[in-house]
Amino acid sequence: MTREDLIAEIKTKKSFLCVGLDSDLKRLPKHLLKTENPILEFNKQIIEATKDYCVAYKPNIAFYESMGPEGWRVLEETIQYIPSNKFIIADAKRGDIGNTSKMYAKTFFETYNFDAITVAPYMGEDSVTPYFGFDSKWVILLAATSNSGGLDFQYKSLTNGKMLFEEVLEKSKEWGDSRNIMYVVGATRADILQKVRAIVPDNFLLVPGVGAQGGSLRKVVENGMNSACGLLVNSSRGIIYADDSERFAEVAGEKAKELQQEMENYLKEYSVI
Amino acid sequence: MTREDLIAEIKTKKSFLCVGLDSDLKRLPKHLLKTENPILEFNKQIIEATKDYCVAYKPNIAFYESMGPEGWRVLEETIQYIPSNKFIIADAKRGDIGNTSKMYAKTFFETYNFDAITVAPYMGEDSVTPYFGFDSKWVILLAATSNSGGLDFQYKSLTNGKMLFEEVLEKSKEWGDSRNIMYVVGATRADILQKVRAIVPDNFLLVPGVGAQGGSLRKVVENGMNSACGLLVNSSRGIIYADDSERFAEVAGEKAKELQQEMENYLKEYSVI
Repeated sequence: MTREDLIAEIKTKKSFLCVGLDSDLKRLPKHLLKTENPILEFNKQIIEATKDYCVAYKPNIAFYESMGPEGWRVLEETIQYIPSNKFIIADAKRGDIGNTSKMYAKTFFETYNFDAITVAPYMGEDSVTPYFGFDSKWVILLAATSNSGGLDFQYKSLTNGKMLFEEVLEKSKEWGDSRNIMYVVGATRADILQKVRAIVPDNFLLVPGVGAQGGSLRKVVENGMNSACGLLVNSSRGIIYADDSERFAEVAGEKAKELQQEMENYLKEYSVI
Repeated sequence: MTREDLIAEIKTKKSFLCVGLDSDLKRLPKHLLKTENPILEFNKQIIEATKDYCVAYKPNIAFYESMGPEGWRVLEETIQYIPSNKFIIADAKRGDIGNTSKMYAKTFFETYNFDAITVAPYMGEDSVTPYFGFDSKWVILLAATSNSGGLDFQYKSLTNGKMLFEEVLEKSKEWGDSRNIMYVVGATRADILQKVRAIVPDNFLLVPGVGAQGGSLRKVVENGMNSACGLLVNSSRGIIYADDSERFAEVAGEKAKELQQEMENYLKEYSVI
């Protein structure tokens, strides 16, 4: 999906919500366990209930991989089920040398037809650029993550005056632009979002941590929104596990709608729509 | 596999060679393409030909993943084929928040029974420690990699006087020890190996870059070997793609044997055996 198409979808749906499909057999509503393929059934019902309120879906690859080959089949069928106007993110956090990154790119962009893949920056340029050889496909580079361990290295100060995540942003601007790179920026710290925006004003940011991880949507918008929206805000557990009864999909839809309505207000307030 | 068992295997085989199974359909000997399962057939013949000269195998997960669900089945059968006294490394370079890392650990340590997994440090402590909850299993943390992009961030100087990879080594010593953490250190720079050994004298190092990436085995040994050997040196393309005729396995065995014999000399020279 191109940047233009993504922005058009955000304006049409009046939403910049991404629904995280961290689908775990252990957390599924009990009644689904009797079905032939519980995870796929769960995903289909979640997608059906939330598709009017979101613009993106983000399967967490770890959850599918842990099921062995069958998990990859479920992932494939899940992607086929997602409507074609959605931006689909492989949350895989890959990062390896050139020839290996090329294999990962082929996997996620060709074998599975994802629009984007999350990538870790530690191995530098040749671990990131192989993903750019695919039309309308995206790298979403980890910059400042919202987990506690994010503090260990990402916020370390370098002798050039920058923090490591700022160096990652600066350096990666040499490799791509706002048409093929987004950044993962955690929602838990407003000051970090400001620093990110100072370096990459135009790029989209994928912001997890709203909901289960405790970030506030208003703060994210205040510090991260730009004139083209520039945000994809993810919620996983807060939507898909909001209810574990037979009403789970209905409740997931309600939670997604609540977020969409809050987002619509912000999009108007900031004159994006 | 425990540290003791690994060291015992190194002494028995007089080798610290790891054979990288970067098996790619495009690079396979032509005659194998007629077989029912070319990659599996290739791996079996490579393993059969090299198992007397190495102590470890390292499938590069990207290459299997790119084949879809069938690739994971080939990976599973390959692992089952590897003799039980080998140390098996999932070269997956994962790194994610706690609950996701736990899923990855389950995948590689339980679903597939690997001994170790390579992990990227960018997301810090809670992306690494979930792998420690498994008996005799290992994290192999990226420290200083041998690819050109390694220079982009890993060698950046921090205001505390350390380079980023040194900070990664120091910090990770708080999370585990020489019984459950190894480090990936590229073979291309001797000075870096010395800096690594100054911080982690006892840990095993996984050293890629000997062979196709241009490192010299003698330099690696001079700067990285300790009294328990402390090294696993990987060669992938230099062994498995040394020949593309019907003799490929025989030639792979010869290449592995050459490295083993050089390693045997070093193990004697440094009084490990």
